[in-house]
Amino acid sequence: MKSLATYSAYLESALQQDQFASEPTNLYDPLRYFLQLGGKRMRPMLSLMACKLAGSPMEKALPVALAVEYFHNFSLIHDDIMDAAPLRRGQATVHEKWNTNIAILSGDVLLVKAYDHLTNYDASNFQRLFKVFNRTAVEVCEGQQMDMDFEQRVEVTESEYLEMIRLKTSVLLGCALQMGGIVGGASTADAERLYAFGEQLGLAFQIQDDILDLYGESAQVGKQVGGDVLANKKTLLSISAKKAASPEQLAKLKSIENTTDPLIKVEQTQKLYTELGARAYCEAKMEFHHHQALNSLEDMELNNSKNELHELANFLFTRSF
Amino acid sequence: MKSLATYSAYLESALQQDQFASEPTNLYDPLRYFLQLGGKRMRPMLSLMACKLAGSPMEKALPVALAVEYFHNFSLIHDDIMDAAPLRRGQATVHEKWNTNIAILSGDVLLVKAYDHLTNYDASNFQRLFKVFNRTAVEVCEGQQMDMDFEQRVEVTESEYLEMIRLKTSVLLGCALQMGGIVGGASTADAERLYAFGEQLGLAFQIQDDILDLYGESAQVGKQVGGDVLANKKTLLSISAKKAASPEQLAKLKSIENTTDPLIKVEQTQKLYTELGARAYCEAKMEFHHHQALNSLEDMELNNSKNELHELANFLFTRSF
Repeated sequence: MKSLATYSAYLESALQQDQFASEPTNLYDPLRYFLQLGGKRMRPMLSLMACKLAGSPMEKALPVALAVEYFHNFSLIHDDIMDAAPLRRGQATVHEKWNTNIAILSGDVLLVKAYDHLTNYDASNFQRLFKVFNRTAVEVCEGQQMDMDFEQRVEVTESEYLEMIRLKTSVLLGCALQMGGIVGGASTADAERLYAFGEQLGLAFQIQDDILDLYGESAQVGKQVGGDVLANKKTLLSISAKKAASPEQLAKLKSIENTTDPLIKVEQTQKLYTELGARAYCEAKMEFHHHQALNSLEDMELNNSKNELHELANFLFTRSF
Repeated sequence: MKSLATYSAYLESALQQDQFASEPTNLYDPLRYFLQLGGKRMRPMLSLMACKLAGSPMEKALPVALAVEYFHNFSLIHDDIMDAAPLRRGQATVHEKWNTNIAILSGDVLLVKAYDHLTNYDASNFQRLFKVFNRTAVEVCEGQQMDMDFEQRVEVTESEYLEMIRLKTSVLLGCALQMGGIVGGASTADAERLYAFGEQLGLAFQIQDDILDLYGESAQVGKQVGGDVLANKKTLLSISAKKAASPEQLAKLKSIENTTDPLIKVEQTQKLYTELGARAYCEAKMEFHHHQALNSLEDMELNNSKNELHELANFLFTRSF
């Protein structure tokens, strides 16, 4: 496997070279700004890696990598409006730095520009890529809508929650890998296995995120421990804890929810969720999806060493998205 | 030429049959609602007509017609948010009936669904259509941004204004016609002439709109006469009047702008714009673009009768968009 720094430097340089028009400045300046806020470039990196694993030079996957990264940033710009988020990667969001109208419209044009990159392939590959990409784009919108809907609801089932995170985050990882595989020359079956790998890994990550948010060390989480609990956010932990609770334990959960002291609230939630087996349940669930992902890798017919694939999986699993 | 009612009934029925998923309802209900608000379906009709003129049954152009109509509606949903418009076609806008977040996201997914329709063509046509469509999509966003920017500016030149209306409205007419021509089997040159026809006609219409807004009969305009003047909106009339005015006349324009009585304000503006030759100038400009459009038709190699094309042009020019 190439070093991550190689992929990363290549992507940053490509993103900088991919110029937007200079005018209208209120349309394109926000995009130049937002795309340079950085981030791990995880999704486009997956496209490059999948292409290489399929036996082609990573450069062949650059257009799909950029399409995926543009799409991801389009969705972030619009999500930030919907969440009224003031900051993204420590910097002002587009709607904060400019205004909501500009954030809507520059997000729109970034989505259109994402599609543009796919036209770099020949007609038959283009149509194949397009179908994967477009199905994913619809799903990501559906996932975002479900996420907003869930905030307004009292009850969300585990399967609804898992479907929401699958749509909102996992399918784009799958799409990035599948498209990288396609342009790299992977068989249809292997390209689908790359998709499944990304999808399952995405689920495992999101569950890991939920666990780390409550049980991680502050440094590991990179934010306040228990943030989800303090915001009364629905997560796989809270959903499975509620499901396992007796009427008395439910009452206790409710009373903890109304606790005002944040440290006590987080500590008591940690304790009760562990008692209820929610932590263990989520860890098992995370492991399940992690193994599903690895099984997809095992099934691949690709000629390249399986070691590279496992290294990739392990790398992915020790990083947060 | 088929009767308009034939095209229209065919489109309405196709739009009704094109089902969105039932869930998430907050994502797809707004689209069902908005697409059924009606409208003249002018753009998709142009695709069907162009296909027929190229010698193929109109049915062949249905997917491009739907792509264009979806794109147009996506842009309306987002424009309505940006303009804080409460009504569209006499009914509540999506952001009013639901909320802004839902309007952003359902607009996004409608844009994605617009692209979907293009995949109904074989790979080589698909890529050709896609390039026309995507270039147009970028341009429409640029036009909308220019329109918003112009509201904040004191001075807008005539060429800037014409470029804005070309991008915001004309290119999509051109795109609808060109794509219809492509799938109907028109030569590349003829498909480009169809584009130019739509683009020039769109410019002529928008200028006609500006003139009718100030000089039309109320019934003809379908809204209050002088609405643009009362809103101090920049139009080709106001721009050319300002350009032709002497320092004294400029002062008079300024004083009329501050008039509070709406009837007097409109009447005085009509009079001064006529004196300044702005009305005549705009009429000449409108005629110029109308003729440019007709010239594109004349140049076509299409075998079908030129009469049909002229009928189409005349039909288009006696209708408002």
